[in-house]
Amino acid sequence: MKSYHEIIETTYKEVKKTKDKGKIATYIPELGNVSSDNFGASISTIDDKTFGVGNCDEKFSIQSISKILTLTLAYKLEGEKLWERVDVEPSGNPFNSLQQLDADKGKPRNPFINAGAIVICDVLVSRLENPKEDFLKFCREVADNDTINYCEKVAQSEKETGFRNFALCNFIKSFDNIKNDVDKVLDFYFYTCSLEMSCKELSETFLYLTEDNFSTCKGNRVLSKSEAKRVNAIMLTCGFYDESGEFAFRVGLPGKSGVGGGIIAIHPNEYCIAVWSPKLNPKGNSYKGMLFLEKFTSATTSSIF
Amino acid sequence: MKSYHEIIETTYKEVKKTKDKGKIATYIPELGNVSSDNFGASISTIDDKTFGVGNCDEKFSIQSISKILTLTLAYKLEGEKLWERVDVEPSGNPFNSLQQLDADKGKPRNPFINAGAIVICDVLVSRLENPKEDFLKFCREVADNDTINYCEKVAQSEKETGFRNFALCNFIKSFDNIKNDVDKVLDFYFYTCSLEMSCKELSETFLYLTEDNFSTCKGNRVLSKSEAKRVNAIMLTCGFYDESGEFAFRVGLPGKSGVGGGIIAIHPNEYCIAVWSPKLNPKGNSYKGMLFLEKFTSATTSSIF
Amino acid sequence: MKSYHEIIETTYKEVKKTKDKGKIATYIPELGNVSSDNFGASISTIDDKTFGVGNCDEKFSIQSISKILTLTLAYKLEGEKLWERVDVEPSGNPFNSLQQLDADKGKPRNPFINAGAIVICDVLVSRLENPKEDFLKFCREVADNDTINYCEKVAQSEKETGFRNFALCNFIKSFDNIKNDVDKVLDFYFYTCSLEMSCKELSETFLYLTEDNFSTCKGNRVLSKSEAKRVNAIMLTCGFYDESGEFAFRVGLPGKSGVGGGIIAIHPNEYCIAVWSPKLNPKGNSYKGMLFLEKFTSATTSSIF
Amino acid sequence: MKSYHEIIETTYKEVKKTKDKGKIATYIPELGNVSSDNFGASISTIDDKTFGVGNCDEKFSIQSISKILTLTLAYKLEGEKLWERVDVEPSGNPFNSLQQLDADKGKPRNPFINAGAIVICDVLVSRLENPKEDFLKFCREVADNDTINYCEKVAQSEKETGFRNFALCNFIKSFDNIKNDVDKVLDFYFYTCSLEMSCKELSETFLYLTEDNFSTCKGNRVLSKSEAKRVNAIMLTCGFYDESGEFAFRVGLPGKSGVGGGIIAIHPNEYCIAVWSPKLNPKGNSYKGMLFLEKFTSATTSSIF
Repeated sequence: MKSYHEIIETTYKEVKKTKDKGKIATYIPELGNVSSDNFGASISTIDDKTFGVGNCDEKFSIQSISKILTLTLAYKLEGEKLWERVDVEPSGNPFNSLQQLDADKGKPRNPFINAGAIVICDVLVSRLENPKEDFLKFCREVADNDTINYCEKVAQSEKETGFRNFALCNFIKSFDNIKNDVDKVLDFYFYTCSLEMSCKELSETFLYLTEDNFSTCKGNRVLSKSEAKRVNAIMLTCGFYDESGEFAFRVGLPGKSGVGGGIIAIHPNEYCIAVWSPKLNPKGNSYKGMLFLEKFTSATTSSIF
Repeated sequence: MKSYHEIIETTYKEVKKTKDKGKIATYIPELGNVSSDNFGASISTIDDKTFGVGNCDEKFSIQSISKILTLTLAYKLEGEKLWERVDVEPSGNPFNSLQQLDADKGKPRNPFINAGAIVICDVLVSRLENPKEDFLKFCREVADNDTINYCEKVAQSEKETGFRNFALCNFIKSFDNIKNDVDKVLDFYFYTCSLEMSCKELSETFLYLTEDNFSTCKGNRVLSKSEAKRVNAIMLTCGFYDESGEFAFRVGLPGKSGVGGGIIAIHPNEYCIAVWSPKLNPKGNSYKGMLFLEKFTSATTSSIF
Repeated sequence: MKSYHEIIETTYKEVKKTKDKGKIATYIPELGNVSSDNFGASISTIDDKTFGVGNCDEKFSIQSISKILTLTLAYKLEGEKLWERVDVEPSGNPFNSLQQLDADKGKPRNPFINAGAIVICDVLVSRLENPKEDFLKFCREVADNDTINYCEKVAQSEKETGFRNFALCNFIKSFDNIKNDVDKVLDFYFYTCSLEMSCKELSETFLYLTEDNFSTCKGNRVLSKSEAKRVNAIMLTCGFYDESGEFAFRVGLPGKSGVGGGIIAIHPNEYCIAVWSPKLNPKGNSYKGMLFLEKFTSATTSSIF
Repeated sequence: MKSYHEIIETTYKEVKKTKDKGKIATYIPELGNVSSDNFGASISTIDDKTFGVGNCDEKFSIQSISKILTLTLAYKLEGEKLWERVDVEPSGNPFNSLQQLDADKGKPRNPFINAGAIVICDVLVSRLENPKEDFLKFCREVADNDTINYCEKVAQSEKETGFRNFALCNFIKSFDNIKNDVDKVLDFYFYTCSLEMSCKELSETFLYLTEDNFSTCKGNRVLSKSEAKRVNAIMLTCGFYDESGEFAFRVGLPGKSGVGGGIIAIHPNEYCIAVWSPKLNPKGNSYKGMLFLEKFTSATTSSIF
């Protein structure tokens, strides 16, 4: 694993001094308060070793990265019939488009666009007794880390300004693909998005999507191998909104970004890597995060292609 | 390689007796004349061994599978500046949609939808002295096979009925992203689609996208390793029109289909596999072909995820 | 005016016996309870005489016809700056499309599609102290009729099932073109749609859009002549969702329909006519209502063209 | 008629000195050569008197105004079954949109967008022995003017750069709503657009859409009264691309514009008016032309609403 360490350090230094062309997300007011200088990365390998650089221990709002966790729990609970409610196709449209949802009669293209993640949250609201508590418990077990928590302020901030998500959820409900009360589903959704984790916690958590036996450190199975591979496949084709093709092309790993500036990526046979830099490119993905991962997989020739 | 042989034979028998829910493509009249009973498959491994079953030696119209070959040659000639003309994003729309092209100001989403392949052909028409002859020569060298040829009848058939492709090409030209005469570009495009190859020839040809040194059997480099990986990435995200996500989800390999009923798929470290069965599912991909590959990668657990 | 009487009676009899190809609206459950046999019509001429046939005295849910009244009051209060919030163009899309609203950045195409009427309601919520009471008072004065009222049941029914309208309103608010609380705006909107009036009341009420001095029977000015003409122009181009062109083509008068099966039409120099038959054609307009008006304007040659 | 004269002169002077915010059309290179200072207007009343101001005798490229003439001739020849090929609804989209045509399966929204006019030309190519000659003959008779002619240079200019129209025509043909050869249909279409007429000739020609007996000055019936009214209705709802609602709202008359800067408008009971000023607003309609007509109908209170 030494070479990964070295390459991470070299890449980190190189990207750190690159001019950041991105812009911090401000549409959720609370996110605008984060210092844009933050930059950290962490790798966890399938032998359960973790190595981090920069602000790798600082917690940040993981935002859409949480969509992997909600998907994982819903998939675990529903099995393959989950796909009757949400598809597995790239959307090819900006992440909050309503037009496609209309053409597809309320079935979201995939679980990683907002529409799809909201349907996943609806599934969980139906399945879990106390959705917020139960989901948090699940996250903590997968992460083997009881400090993981929601950020109330961010959740409230999104609730007060998330008119597009209210529009989406009501629109999907008009097609009868939301079974619970809109306010209840979105309350849960906004909380899941507000989860805070550090790069180290992220790279350790998502090891369950690698050949690390697909289980938590307590040995509880998270997903079957086949299910984990399918989640990876969806991440590869859909994890970066309408820049998913670009990420596959430049980085070559399944991954998922969040508007908080975090990205995680999976090398199924070897490692999970997480990176955080708050400024986003025009497509809504971390500018330095993508650059870092591109340079890292080039240097390690660890694209899956 | 023994286990691949056995699994291919078992899978072939199993899928052969499955009811075919697909329908043969008739929009190109000439394609409607092929017997829908044809079913063959072939695998070539990176140690250059090939094994086939069923109608694996029968030539058929490879149609859009040729888009990998035109892309490869254009990429080889233009390098990274090729991407100024065509993007690498999944389209999320039916394969001949004009709407997205309008929003994207004439830059096609990727080289595997018709719009993108037509721009790629325009690049080749600009670059090659005798496009049809030179491209055929390139295909023959990559395949190490001088019997590879166009099918005049199919090319003519497409030219006479390909009004949507004429619409596409003129539309792109209105955005100035076609540099040559529309008729000349489309004549070349229709010929490339009319290429005829057997499953065996296909699996041998596309070995250049695996770790088989990315070169022809004569040892001439086709693409660099990095370029080959990028072509694979585009195949994974865009190779099956608006069923690309489904293919990644179910099969888990980069691949490309054609309306002639052929599919090729690449396992970057191990093999290239080709399958042919003319009846198509509603999204335009071979029904039995997809089923065969899904069962094959499940049995061999050879998804890249 | 004798000839109008005769023509109305003849046309009424003729259309009454025609087979009704329409279907009653059921998306608002409460509307499904109306007997589809109802059929009535009424004409009021600029000399303030009214003549009706069939169920012309029976009140029904006027639904979108109320959009003329909300527009009128908002226009009266805001003047020409109203058009900064809503446009005057036909939409060319089904009446609840969100796609166009996205392209137009939250400015609805016209005040007669749901999106536009909701923005108009937002304007009134900002302007009126007690929106529901004040608007009802306005309607009663224009109609010179104190029996005009909302239908609580219909308003509640729409509120419970109107997810698309909640989607629309939240979506527009995400573009900052809704200034008040979404629930408050929609509560008002659903009440305006639930207004109940008879054909006679309708034909008398909308005389203020003809050369009848643009005033209520008490002599209070409703709109200026220029404003009334502009409202008529919008009705002509936008009054029948994506069948507005067809209505102009076949009937040739400014008009407005509602999913309750009512239609009103204006001949600016001569009369206002109202017709009611609950079964709707596939575009959402009364089947017999359109037929009746087409025959009536043909027989009287009173198209404005 | 005296007052019309005076009002035209006053309005002309007033608008002449207004700053022209428009821009001359340059997408057809040949049109870019016209001096933008040209400004003329002409009115013809149903008593066959004509009065003009400014450059009212100078011929210019009438462009899309010719779509009324092709529609008229096709309607005359086909009768109501013409509407099986083209609809009568406003498009609500920019004038060369392909997206809507896709949703509508190749049936253009109306005869005044390019798609619809091309289908109309296809109808004429099927019906006329020598389309270009026969159509010109028809125009000359309606105009009672043998000097009316095509402009070869403009027709050629459009043919060489009209890739969008080639895209449109091929796209419609893919839905089988073009019956003749694409090149033949478009050759005819480009010639019809290249017609040159002066304001005076235009106002005299289109008198056949008023109560002037719907006939040529030789007394030959052009259209029936009912047909003429329907053409006027389509002009009102569709004559100004996606600014049709605005024209109805501000001017209040059926009309049609062309990118050469001409506009004609019809008051069905009184007159036909033509105006020409080459600079266009962002929606493609003459800036000063629209302003002139708005002021004219306000001053004469001759809106049809």
